[in-house]
Amino acid sequence: MEPEAALLTDLYQLTMTEAYLAEGQWDEAVFSLFVRGLPTRRNYLLAAGLEDALHTLEQLRFRAEDLEWLASQGRFSDRLLGWLERFKFSGDLDAMPEGTPVFGQEPLLEVRAPLPEAQLVETYLLNHVHLQTLAASKASRVVTAAAGRPVMEFGLRRIHGTDAGLKVARASYLAGVESTSNVLAGMRYGIPLSGTMAHSYVQSHDDELEAFRAFTRVYPDATLLVDTYDTLRGVQHVIRLARELGEDFRVRALRLDSGDLLALSLAARELLDEAGLERVRLIGSGGLDEDSVAKLLARGAPLDGFGVGTAMGVSADAPSLDMAYKLVEYAGKGRVKLSAGKALLPGAKQVYRQDEDGVARRDLLVRRGDVASGRPLLRPVMRAGQRLPDASPSLEEVRQHARRELSRLPAEVRALEPARPPYSVVVGDGLARARAHEVEVWAAEP
Amino acid sequence: MEPEAALLTDLYQLTMTEAYLAEGQWDEAVFSLFVRGLPTRRNYLLAAGLEDALHTLEQLRFRAEDLEWLASQGRFSDRLLGWLERFKFSGDLDAMPEGTPVFGQEPLLEVRAPLPEAQLVETYLLNHVHLQTLAASKASRVVTAAAGRPVMEFGLRRIHGTDAGLKVARASYLAGVESTSNVLAGMRYGIPLSGTMAHSYVQSHDDELEAFRAFTRVYPDATLLVDTYDTLRGVQHVIRLARELGEDFRVRALRLDSGDLLALSLAARELLDEAGLERVRLIGSGGLDEDSVAKLLARGAPLDGFGVGTAMGVSADAPSLDMAYKLVEYAGKGRVKLSAGKALLPGAKQVYRQDEDGVARRDLLVRRGDVASGRPLLRPVMRAGQRLPDASPSLEEVRQHARRELSRLPAEVRALEPARPPYSVVVGDGLARARAHEVEVWAAEP
Repeated sequence: MEPEAALLTDLYQLTMTEAYLAEGQWDEAVFSLFVRGLPTRRNYLLAAGLEDALHTLEQLRFRAEDLEWLASQGRFSDRLLGWLERFKFSGDLDAMPEGTPVFGQEPLLEVRAPLPEAQLVETYLLNHVHLQTLAASKASRVVTAAAGRPVMEFGLRRIHGTDAGLKVARASYLAGVESTSNVLAGMRYGIPLSGTMAHSYVQSHDDELEAFRAFTRVYPDATLLVDTYDTLRGVQHVIRLARELGEDFRVRALRLDSGDLLALSLAARELLDEAGLERVRLIGSGGLDEDSVAKLLARGAPLDGFGVGTAMGVSADAPSLDMAYKLVEYAGKGRVKLSAGKALLPGAKQVYRQDEDGVARRDLLVRRGDVASGRPLLRPVMRAGQRLPDASPSLEEVRQHARRELSRLPAEVRALEPARPPYSVVVGDGLARARAHEVEVWAAEP
Repeated sequence: MEPEAALLTDLYQLTMTEAYLAEGQWDEAVFSLFVRGLPTRRNYLLAAGLEDALHTLEQLRFRAEDLEWLASQGRFSDRLLGWLERFKFSGDLDAMPEGTPVFGQEPLLEVRAPLPEAQLVETYLLNHVHLQTLAASKASRVVTAAAGRPVMEFGLRRIHGTDAGLKVARASYLAGVESTSNVLAGMRYGIPLSGTMAHSYVQSHDDELEAFRAFTRVYPDATLLVDTYDTLRGVQHVIRLARELGEDFRVRALRLDSGDLLALSLAARELLDEAGLERVRLIGSGGLDEDSVAKLLARGAPLDGFGVGTAMGVSADAPSLDMAYKLVEYAGKGRVKLSAGKALLPGAKQVYRQDEDGVARRDLLVRRGDVASGRPLLRPVMRAGQRLPDASPSLEEVRQHARRELSRLPAEVRALEPARPPYSVVVGDGLARARAHEVEVWAAEP
């Protein structure tokens, strides 16, 4: 987060903090960050964004110029401005590790801190975790559809802004994508880079074969884009180039970016094989998503990899999650909401994943501290504002964790089609009773 | 753009540049940035993102650490690295001013520069213009639906990342939204801020009335959130507060965030009016978009304003545009593509908007330099890498321009429903002939 980003928050976080300070509402609060329900086309979500969430909680400071500007707005007291000037997050964070499959109502993370602090960090945490969980969840489906063939992330130009360009590249890699076209994501996160060529490169030459000759002089093992004028004529140009170069021909792959990718990939494969170019691979791209990838492969398209951009990068079929950050405990009392369709389970929680024969069969959602069987998914990652020593896995470790955890989900949950019935999240008895009790208390309020 | 952001580009921009330099492909190129076709639910788009595009073209530099990292990758020559080290955009830019309604196939901007420069800036320009045009176009529909009532932009938590959080706030304001909850957007762009309170504020008090009392002690003219437990009981609490405070009661509005907003707003209005609180306004929020806003108002919901977040902020019904940046001229020759479904019109262009009785009736898309009647929409904004003096309108000027230009569109084009027939974009005869000529030339290529 850029240093000035302390103000990248909703105004009401500041006005509510002002009111909390005025009343001395300093007691400890627990906020839970969770998704109310999954989008229709998601059987699971893949938790992501924790690294940025921790980084923000560690680094967040209000600069002198931020405070001066706030002061100039005439809305805020010296008490609030002084508190912001001294602000340093001092609370605790428990969270699911990045790459953990997560379901509706399950906390991805829980914050425990004095109320004003826990409130103030809401917008940053949601902005980080929402986007990255959204992106990892979508990318995971595309990786599933590609069934072991590499997926390259090409979305930067249409992903929403520069920050999302980086975060989506990281979240996609975490979810199993093989590489990204985003150079800064390669530099910052160590993600393998890949790229081919654009139509403009071909167009800028007076003929396509000459463009292929020129590019392979510089990058002999390039992936050549063959659909600028006519895909199969493009393939023929590559075959001519192979004859010209003989043993020096090292073109790795051809990219098909438009038209009927099934028919074209079959015909291209046949042309290449007849020419003895069996080892030249075919990459599909052009508006692909998990559905079109799965359909192409089911029908036998001989595609060896996929470049996937916009549909994955903006999570086109579900571009947001119903993710919220809600007060569940204050001053030792459970808190609920009764708003229509937005009910809330009170108190700090834990999620236990229960396996049978190495396959996750159900999750049990309980009050934090309740004894239950299964694997607890939320772990302590920050105490008193300090990140814990084992809360800094490398991106490769996160990626391995995701692969391992996804492989433990039931096959029908990993599949693209809606799982019937969906994966089971059971609310534990103690939590259900606590909820019933709080509803009674709050509904009875005069 | 952050200084390191020169690497926030697609790998192939660098590899193609490498190849252009190797061959000495220095001739002048024209690239056109346009949307191929509009999403089903968009009768027009609203151009935005030019300010950031200009800023990037002015500021873009490769830092020593960027170049060192690139060198360490073993893919790039000293020739390329030296060229990047000296890079400073030296070309020309013509563009539609921000806030101009734009249609399919019409260039939002055109770059003219030596080929490697014009190629290298593709990803930055698309990333800026795509997101902001997407966001302004969506927000414009929400503003239309609200029919003069203020729309507040509340999307930061679920907008895709921090950069988009800022840009969407700006694009939404440009399109007619009244204010934003995003504090940094207020500081950076001067957009009016607005905000109310969250459920957590109410929940942290032992009863709702006490929460309202406490908040109004600090902010007497607050907007109070009344749906935490039961909306109409919340309204009754506000009425009790009004009786307690008498003349000191200055609550401005109530926010209804869940449930049946039509029935609840009618009932809330009646309760308030009976209590003599006619001047307390009602704000609707909670998963709203242009359709739900229009429907509520059509059925007579007495809502005086709307808080709109996620659906507007991620452009949920159309989260991307089919926007491309394509080579249309190189070394004085028109360039086309023949890829299925992605055909291209050659050469630099101009768009003339033709009005009748003050209403835009059609756009004429012609070759740059062709004489035509109507208002030319693309204007020179940069020459030889320098921004032109009149290419820095204030955000308020852009917003006024958008309002004026939108008011000149036919009513059926401004409407939410698909216009039948859609707004007419006519390809001029000269351009059509040029296209036919190039297709013949390139299709005949052996």
